[in-house]
Amino acid sequence: MKNSGIKNIAIIGASGAIGRAFVEHYAASEEIGCIYACSRSPHEYNDSRIISIDLDLEQPDSIETAAAQIKARSLDIIIAATGILHADGDNPLQPEKSLRDINAEQLQRVLAVNTIGPALLLRHFLPLLKKDSSAVFGLLSARVGSISDNRLGGWYSYRASKAALNMLIKTAAIETRRTNKQAVIIGLHPGTVDSQLSKPFQARVPENKLFSAAQSAAYMAGVLDSVEAGDSGKCFAWDGKEVPA
Amino acid sequence: MKNSGIKNIAIIGASGAIGRAFVEHYAASEEIGCIYACSRSPHEYNDSRIISIDLDLEQPDSIETAAAQIKARSLDIIIAATGILHADGDNPLQPEKSLRDINAEQLQRVLAVNTIGPALLLRHFLPLLKKDSSAVFGLLSARVGSISDNRLGGWYSYRASKAALNMLIKTAAIETRRTNKQAVIIGLHPGTVDSQLSKPFQARVPENKLFSAAQSAAYMAGVLDSVEAGDSGKCFAWDGKEVPA
Repeated sequence: MKNSGIKNIAIIGASGAIGRAFVEHYAASEEIGCIYACSRSPHEYNDSRIISIDLDLEQPDSIETAAAQIKARSLDIIIAATGILHADGDNPLQPEKSLRDINAEQLQRVLAVNTIGPALLLRHFLPLLKKDSSAVFGLLSARVGSISDNRLGGWYSYRASKAALNMLIKTAAIETRRTNKQAVIIGLHPGTVDSQLSKPFQARVPENKLFSAAQSAAYMAGVLDSVEAGDSGKCFAWDGKEVPA
Repeated sequence: MKNSGIKNIAIIGASGAIGRAFVEHYAASEEIGCIYACSRSPHEYNDSRIISIDLDLEQPDSIETAAAQIKARSLDIIIAATGILHADGDNPLQPEKSLRDINAEQLQRVLAVNTIGPALLLRHFLPLLKKDSSAVFGLLSARVGSISDNRLGGWYSYRASKAALNMLIKTAAIETRRTNKQAVIIGLHPGTVDSQLSKPFQARVPENKLFSAAQSAAYMAGVLDSVEAGDSGKCFAWDGKEVPA
């Protein structure tokens, strides 16, 4: 890892496919002090190093409360493994195929989870980051959030919410550099992961590019381990390549 | 102008400083058929070519109703001259100076006006655009909405909302190209305009770079007049230079 020594980690969205995979990835290491597994559906872990914390991304107070619970210990790694693309059930949501599908409710809902929630995570969790070259905060973004890489169109609210998130990451990196020079804040593109989020959209993904959550989390942990202060504010794919704005 | 012949124009946000300047700019031309001046504070104009239409960007229904009123006549130029950066009065709003200022209400409010409203304008007004090389839809964006050009940080919600808007513009341009090949959809950076929006932030602007609304509208009308199909989806400053993503 980046620095030797025991690491403390917070993973937000720890009950999602990728979040859970991150928890398992880091729990397999002996160099871990605590893993704060933050989620709106807390879980009992069979590992005393993993501490479950209530956090609902759509409840600003719960984000502040969660951060306050961790405050005593500074963190080496923070990962926001959250996001909404579609939803089933009572309140279904499908990414817009065309302009005709755009509606205010969907935009609000997607922006709340993919933009506003992460903005509040940056506010309340960035101060917990260690002042050390091990300090890194990775937030799940997506290649489709790249404006310059957009070739296919569609998915208006998801694309817009992730472009907005990329801007928040860049802006937070600029501010953080002034007080915590070594900290790195980046967006992460996980690739297409075999998860609830990508399930309806996997048909055209080549087999060797459809990752298990464990594979994707391992790749992204490698990226978090290799980035340097000069990378702060950027977005990187699972393979370490920069995703343009 | 781009094409000769009589033009029909819609200006959304016609009661703001820049929107009003656009109305006056085009009203000074004899090549104008109708100007639809859309605004939440409708106005009686002393020019029978200017038709006032109710439109409140925060009321999705009013956007649809306004578009339906124009439907009979196809448009050459559509301009969305809307945006929120700060507010006084009962419900004040200041752009965030630091991470500590981030809050969910402000993000919601700024995204509603700067991102969700324009998304609905794209949905309901793009179908009104003429299938002709004169067709252009310009939406006020801002240089501070450029992720790669962000050097100073701060202004989290405003920056994020305009980055999201730039993504919507790019995505709408990709979709529109399939059915209306010649139409151009662009973001516009107005420069710093001596208006209510920029009032608290003018101190560091060199005198020759602080435009009157009339100057800025004239510059941007020039940009709208000169862009071509290949420019669709991009963002341009008042001087015609592209603003990167």
